[in-house]
Amino acid sequence: MRSVMLHARRFGMQGHWRILAAKQPACCLRHRATVVAAAESGTAQAPPKPATGSIAAVQVLDEHTAPEKLQSISTLILDCDGVLWRGSEIIRNAPEALRVFRRDGKRLLFVTNNSSKSRVEYAAKFRSLGLEVSPDEIVSSSYCAAAYLKSVGFGANGSRTDKKVLLLGWTGVEQELRAADIPFIGGREFQLPAMDSMDAMKELQVDPDIGAVVVGWDPNFSYSRIVYASICLRELPGCVLVATNTDCADHIGGGRMMPGTGGLVRAVEVAAGTTAVNVAKGGEWLLPYLCRTYNLDPSRTAIIGDRMDTDILLGRQGGLFTCLPLTGVTTLERLQSLPPSERPNVVVGSVAKLAGLP
Amino acid sequence: MRSVMLHARRFGMQGHWRILAAKQPACCLRHRATVVAAAESGTAQAPPKPATGSIAAVQVLDEHTAPEKLQSISTLILDCDGVLWRGSEIIRNAPEALRVFRRDGKRLLFVTNNSSKSRVEYAAKFRSLGLEVSPDEIVSSSYCAAAYLKSVGFGANGSRTDKKVLLLGWTGVEQELRAADIPFIGGREFQLPAMDSMDAMKELQVDPDIGAVVVGWDPNFSYSRIVYASICLRELPGCVLVATNTDCADHIGGGRMMPGTGGLVRAVEVAAGTTAVNVAKGGEWLLPYLCRTYNLDPSRTAIIGDRMDTDILLGRQGGLFTCLPLTGVTTLERLQSLPPSERPNVVVGSVAKLAGLP
Repeated sequence: MRSVMLHARRFGMQGHWRILAAKQPACCLRHRATVVAAAESGTAQAPPKPATGSIAAVQVLDEHTAPEKLQSISTLILDCDGVLWRGSEIIRNAPEALRVFRRDGKRLLFVTNNSSKSRVEYAAKFRSLGLEVSPDEIVSSSYCAAAYLKSVGFGANGSRTDKKVLLLGWTGVEQELRAADIPFIGGREFQLPAMDSMDAMKELQVDPDIGAVVVGWDPNFSYSRIVYASICLRELPGCVLVATNTDCADHIGGGRMMPGTGGLVRAVEVAAGTTAVNVAKGGEWLLPYLCRTYNLDPSRTAIIGDRMDTDILLGRQGGLFTCLPLTGVTTLERLQSLPPSERPNVVVGSVAKLAGLP
Repeated sequence: MRSVMLHARRFGMQGHWRILAAKQPACCLRHRATVVAAAESGTAQAPPKPATGSIAAVQVLDEHTAPEKLQSISTLILDCDGVLWRGSEIIRNAPEALRVFRRDGKRLLFVTNNSSKSRVEYAAKFRSLGLEVSPDEIVSSSYCAAAYLKSVGFGANGSRTDKKVLLLGWTGVEQELRAADIPFIGGREFQLPAMDSMDAMKELQVDPDIGAVVVGWDPNFSYSRIVYASICLRELPGCVLVATNTDCADHIGGGRMMPGTGGLVRAVEVAAGTTAVNVAKGGEWLLPYLCRTYNLDPSRTAIIGDRMDTDILLGRQGGLFTCLPLTGVTTLERLQSLPPSERPNVVVGSVAKLAGLP
């Protein structure tokens, strides 16, 4: 905590606050203009005055002060990228932190918006980084897509068992749909003719049994896929649009960001004139599903995540205890620019601090 | 006018108004939910009562009553698809109407949001449908993209003459960029490696001289193109995003709609965390450009178009006289659901009626 107070004061004294705020990554925001507007606002311009001002400084808890905050917590929902690892690099002492949480009797759920991998593929990634996790503890958005479809009648024994899915996505969702016995077309190897003329689009015949379009991260995303999806959504009665997540972009190291699934979802939404159900953090379906499936008591559940618009939003939606580690996309400056009522309950240097580790 | 009053009354008497409103095409709306909400609103639910109610019926002028409305007008801005033709079918008496307008001394400008063709290609399409139009009278959004770029310094003798354009688009924009001497990469034949791994995206090197990304209708649109565009926009200083238009979808006959440019633009906006400049109808750049270039007097200029969110919006932005023919996407029911203050100045059965033709 001490180090942060010094940190904030230093910015104030040097008058650098505004520049730092304007340098915020725009990854999770719809428009860069929003960031500029925030930087231009009174809140961002005025240097924080921890001692006398009206805006309280963000307190960053350390390994001595953080663990007690989790005393009454029985379930931890952990985000992955930005919390346990960043790209392919493990966060310091993250494996040890998971061991401490388990030793203290806490149930762990790993909830990630990434749709590129299935639960089984994720478990392998956890193991490769030295993290001991079973597939049952992993709730990836690829899994959520299949779980959502089952909840609305797709798959064996469901009320829409005659319906199949059009997947604009990758192997993670493919595997989860197979595991859930939900028939689908599309996916990684979906070949379509070029849609470069009105005639091609007029003549396209879509599979009349499609009852849902799922959009996930899709490196083969194309105009032809948008055409096929929008025709299904506009012309097939009851066909619904499902987004594995709506994240805009992700850090991939070296200051570079890669396009997330959010833009692909928006392209299909606009073309089809409809709105997707977002089954990941940031949407409204996930938390009630988690509460139902894992019998969660919100008052004894904490979420640990690095994104305000997905992780902390999910926690705030459900009255969970919210913890933000500074190892991901959200900076201390960004948190400081928010009114205290919108900040996470706890800010820590890393997930390890919550376990009392350096 | 008589026929419409009867029309509206018939709906009212049969109580069918709400169903008709709910069947509105959602083409130009961001979300189908919006349409449902409109249909659920009090305005849409209550059957219009032309004789005694508070909502005046929409008056549809005929060939006897419409022409006098254009008496003081010296320039007509005409939309194309939905006004002069629909798909490949000419609207009845449209060629004759253009002849009448010219005989009456009116200047004609054909302003279309379609970016797939250049001015020269459009002139050929006009001729093939029996419409006499010169390329100089055509303002296609492909042409607007080049004009906008010139206005901000691209091309020979400009302040950004060292900069080139990344084009996600088709031959129409390619031809207009060449005609304006603006160097570009991309376009129809832009080959990129698959972007199916973080490593591929980390290693991608973009052309450092790119100063603008132009997104138009692009049948070769792909995730790889989104990656390339978003890296340019995020990493190259001053790189701007330009949309030829943001139309969501277009009718192509048989009740089918094709995805427009709007969804492609949104995909790039979300991935890059920025907002595009829309150079077509619906954006803010076009009308001042038209006024400047063609020395328009707004009080003596009319716009004739079938879309509320582009044509009529443009007219309302600039204080033009607005005319909507019922040969395009906007139905009488949709107009009736709007408050009178938001309706076009004149509604006609077709463009021919404005020229006194059946």
